[in-house]
Amino acid sequence: MTLNLPVTVAWTDGGVRVLDQTLLPGEVRYVTCRTVEEAEEAIRSLRIRGAPAIGVMAGFTLALALRIESPGDRAAFLETVERYRRRIAEARPTAVNLEWALKRVTGVVTSSDLESPTDLFALLLGEAERIAAEDRELCDAIGRAGAALVPEGGGVLTHCNAGALATAGSGTALAPLYRAWEEGKRFEVFADETRPLLQGARLTAWELGEAGIPVTILCDGAAASLLASGRVGLVIVGADRIAANGDTANKIGTYGVALAAEAHGVPFYVAAPGSTFDLASAEGSSIPIEEREEGEIRGVPGAVWAAERARTWNPSFDVTPARYIRGFVTEKGILRPPFGPAIRRAYGPEGGSP
Amino acid sequence: MTLNLPVTVAWTDGGVRVLDQTLLPGEVRYVTCRTVEEAEEAIRSLRIRGAPAIGVMAGFTLALALRIESPGDRAAFLETVERYRRRIAEARPTAVNLEWALKRVTGVVTSSDLESPTDLFALLLGEAERIAAEDRELCDAIGRAGAALVPEGGGVLTHCNAGALATAGSGTALAPLYRAWEEGKRFEVFADETRPLLQGARLTAWELGEAGIPVTILCDGAAASLLASGRVGLVIVGADRIAANGDTANKIGTYGVALAAEAHGVPFYVAAPGSTFDLASAEGSSIPIEEREEGEIRGVPGAVWAAERARTWNPSFDVTPARYIRGFVTEKGILRPPFGPAIRRAYGPEGGSP
Repeated sequence: MTLNLPVTVAWTDGGVRVLDQTLLPGEVRYVTCRTVEEAEEAIRSLRIRGAPAIGVMAGFTLALALRIESPGDRAAFLETVERYRRRIAEARPTAVNLEWALKRVTGVVTSSDLESPTDLFALLLGEAERIAAEDRELCDAIGRAGAALVPEGGGVLTHCNAGALATAGSGTALAPLYRAWEEGKRFEVFADETRPLLQGARLTAWELGEAGIPVTILCDGAAASLLASGRVGLVIVGADRIAANGDTANKIGTYGVALAAEAHGVPFYVAAPGSTFDLASAEGSSIPIEEREEGEIRGVPGAVWAAERARTWNPSFDVTPARYIRGFVTEKGILRPPFGPAIRRAYGPEGGSP
Repeated sequence: MTLNLPVTVAWTDGGVRVLDQTLLPGEVRYVTCRTVEEAEEAIRSLRIRGAPAIGVMAGFTLALALRIESPGDRAAFLETVERYRRRIAEARPTAVNLEWALKRVTGVVTSSDLESPTDLFALLLGEAERIAAEDRELCDAIGRAGAALVPEGGGVLTHCNAGALATAGSGTALAPLYRAWEEGKRFEVFADETRPLLQGARLTAWELGEAGIPVTILCDGAAASLLASGRVGLVIVGADRIAANGDTANKIGTYGVALAAEAHGVPFYVAAPGSTFDLASAEGSSIPIEEREEGEIRGVPGAVWAAERARTWNPSFDVTPARYIRGFVTEKGILRPPFGPAIRRAYGPEGGSP
């Protein structure tokens, strides 16, 4: 990509460098995590966020631990890897990609016959870098698959942040937009602010602005009205988990956008890599919905406004039934209805697991 | 009503007393406007808000002006009324009820034959009090008309604040809830927080809490998910303007709630007095949509979060097509489809203007 996209995480001589997303959009500050403690804190406090980006971060953090500990032989190396693998996984216990990446990096080391700690370290770091490179490739493939959907001269609506900031590459939902822009298409993007954590107003609007793509922030409640106005030709969002039938869990507010898109005939697409498809979940109703803490509803950092006697309800995501989804933009192309067979072909036992 | 409902505005010996809504829900403070300047400031800075409440405030403010100026004869009294009528109307030029109330109070004075300034003042204040009393009666009538809709043991969803705080009485959308609660029905209320100005989280949640009715705040984006959950048996909202065919303009976000209610078969009602029906607007597309300032989207008082390069879109209300509305809860009962004839019968030339 030739666009100005942020690099969320990178391995450097000084340590693991991350773009501190808690300071965005007010301040663009890269911090270098020089110790495992600093790296864990960055994961825990959401300086780095987004499932793919967290996976990459996990691999680099394990490499950092080994560089610092510098074990003297293979046995000590393996013991150190195992100790830190368990420890780093606890930085954000619910992040599936964290554990997945740690297992993968650990696996290449334990399954090798190398004796030299220097060689083992090179193997480990190489695998961590490979996870990052693969994520960039996945994003680019999603971008290529979806770029044609972007309406020339039109408007695109997205919800939350499924962009470069959530990955080590160009994002999922935003990758087709970056690709289309690079190909010379011109369009504008509308970003739902995405209460309660405002990732749309803070992150999506920031990274699109940095890339030079015109972006307009609106309140979540205004999305239906925007879709009614005819100014939007495509809705594209990311996903937290996609069931075997295509029902899609994504950030709270996505379902309402899908209903409004349906009411006005605007195509609604979900962009996600294979790892997001959960063939063990038959349909949306079997996806557990995490509820987050009430402070997020009562206000934002710096301002609290909710009536004290009121309770709060804060589900972190909702489920959009497959029938409202026009297609899934994946690294294997666009999956079209009927989604059950399409998803099985792409990612089921017969298609090869992602 | 025996419930603990706030008195938004009242005439007192010391001046016009208003509940300062800019401080809610953090602080419950009544301020007495002892001068016209103070009263105008209260209107301008939204210490008092909601079309009906503003109308009542306008009448009292004119009375305050006359009490202070204390003109010596009829000619001076009429001149003073006219001067302040024009001036007070400018406190919030777009508030239709402000001008309407001022004209009405002025009218009883100019059309009377009284000579004594004391008598003229009594006439003027009496009319201002009558506007307040009529508003309370309208609210109560809406409450009686809608109470039966409230599901015993169920949940009710509302958007923005169309409650006691917006009127001189028990509200419009919330009046049926207060009435049902008084009649012994038990239920819970869900209040959309209603970005950007958060009237749901701040005002609706506060006044329901004060009345002892259980209330839960949710982000606007969570409404679709809540309606999908089956926990809501009634959606009821207020209205800014209702076209002759029933298309309804209300606070931004209402339309998305209506679409989600429709998708899940939850009845969606609009509560409003006759003055909200605009028979001169044939349908929703002829209702102008005011856009408000971008600062409301960029953050809240005390916290700014939006990416700087992004633009904003801040429509103050949206239009819900009549086909998504199950009925209008009015002081004349519930109007049912087809709405064109029902609205004409209730409020058209043949039915008598409101």
